[in-house]
Amino acid sequence: MKIGVFDSGFGGLTVLRALLQRVPAEYVYLGDTARLPYGAKSRETVARYAVSSAKFLVDEQGTEFLVIACNTASALALEEIRDAVGVPVLGVVETGANAAEASSKTRDVMVIATAATVESHAYAAACAERRLRAIEKACPLLVPLLEEGWIEHPVTAEVVRIYMAELMEQARAAGLNADTLVLGCTHYPLLRAQIEKAVPERLRVIDSAEVTAEQVAQRLRIPESGAGATARFFATDSVTKFRALGSRFLGQEIDGVKLVDLERRGTGSR
Amino acid sequence: MKIGVFDSGFGGLTVLRALLQRVPAEYVYLGDTARLPYGAKSRETVARYAVSSAKFLVDEQGTEFLVIACNTASALALEEIRDAVGVPVLGVVETGANAAEASSKTRDVMVIATAATVESHAYAAACAERRLRAIEKACPLLVPLLEEGWIEHPVTAEVVRIYMAELMEQARAAGLNADTLVLGCTHYPLLRAQIEKAVPERLRVIDSAEVTAEQVAQRLRIPESGAGATARFFATDSVTKFRALGSRFLGQEIDGVKLVDLERRGTGSR
Repeated sequence: MKIGVFDSGFGGLTVLRALLQRVPAEYVYLGDTARLPYGAKSRETVARYAVSSAKFLVDEQGTEFLVIACNTASALALEEIRDAVGVPVLGVVETGANAAEASSKTRDVMVIATAATVESHAYAAACAERRLRAIEKACPLLVPLLEEGWIEHPVTAEVVRIYMAELMEQARAAGLNADTLVLGCTHYPLLRAQIEKAVPERLRVIDSAEVTAEQVAQRLRIPESGAGATARFFATDSVTKFRALGSRFLGQEIDGVKLVDLERRGTGSR
Repeated sequence: MKIGVFDSGFGGLTVLRALLQRVPAEYVYLGDTARLPYGAKSRETVARYAVSSAKFLVDEQGTEFLVIACNTASALALEEIRDAVGVPVLGVVETGANAAEASSKTRDVMVIATAATVESHAYAAACAERRLRAIEKACPLLVPLLEEGWIEHPVTAEVVRIYMAELMEQARAAGLNADTLVLGCTHYPLLRAQIEKAVPERLRVIDSAEVTAEQVAQRLRIPESGAGATARFFATDSVTKFRALGSRFLGQEIDGVKLVDLERRGTGSR
């Protein structure tokens, strides 16, 4: 089984990391690093970029199942991607909302994400479809802190503490009795321990990387934990930078990243 | 006198703020907010964007002098801009390096900037031309902290303290006897007090906004402090966001921002 995993950058590697541990397959990961960040771009542009990336993974790499490990692309372009490729597609907003539905007894949930994801209200919409009440909070400093490499760092712990206190206050003001917190950004699993320390114990923290791997396993009816999974990597910008930054997210060294130019293939833009 | 001030976003408003206090003129400010950030983009793309922005300010708005209040555009595209418009052009890398030359007695200087500016080594090159030794340090968390609105904030003070300690260590390791620190990002003047608190007193801090205003005054031979300066504003993305974020950098309310679409004019790109 060949599975494609797509993100605009590195965050999707936390999803791949969970997949490698759970679902045995030949993975092909594409990070569209030349065109990141997707977050601030229009729906049309994000769709054009994401579709060209998805087509590369399916048409050129022969993957038979596609995981959209990018919150912005999942929020803005999932239908366009489904229309463009002939294989099953699963996006992280969907899998996060599914897991929130399964977890929440009070039907009230909280989501933290980047500013762009929060502004799209994709999680709130996906939660509403599942009859969950949701509040969303943007945590714009967390990705820059992770990119600076400040993971186990007192400044990061303090920023997480401030954001979580604001989130609890926002939930209180909205009258929510939330029992579930969705990490709505693929970078955040690296901060899971610090986030759990900063919220009340009754809150169940949903890591979209983990639940995505679980839902891929369910879809493919693969019961046991994965062994023998392999991965190959493509990036659209500097492979050196991809290796250096990416290994932090994957939790292991990355070798053999190949550069791919999606713009010159006529499937991209410019 | 009509003076154009250009930046990819909001940071250039600190330069405009200094200009408004120093040089009486009719200012036209353009923030190319639809295409920011410039930092991660190629030299060709930055030049195309910056030239179309400069042409708008000169050809359509009739400005007679141009200030490039954007470090990336100054670093990567100053010659292209000069070739494209028929008016004098001054860029912030130039003005910062000029001020460092005037300030430094030891001929050793330090520059802090965004990762993109540091990677371009534009300040190091401009300093070398002036026979100054320079070390450059990227401070990638400062812009996100300012955009979060955490200006007078303990987390920001701590991040500044850590970066400045790293900078001092870097200077020591390089054997530099620096007496001057250039703020090589137009966002940083908002953090000047915190930066000065975190470095030894002997270091003179050069605020590129202030020194740019001073050098514009010299070029235009305007000796006295400005009174009667006015400003109009254009942005290529949401004017609401421009007003909200921009007033922080300008230090006063911004009204009457006009939206301009540079891409549809055939001078820009997609």
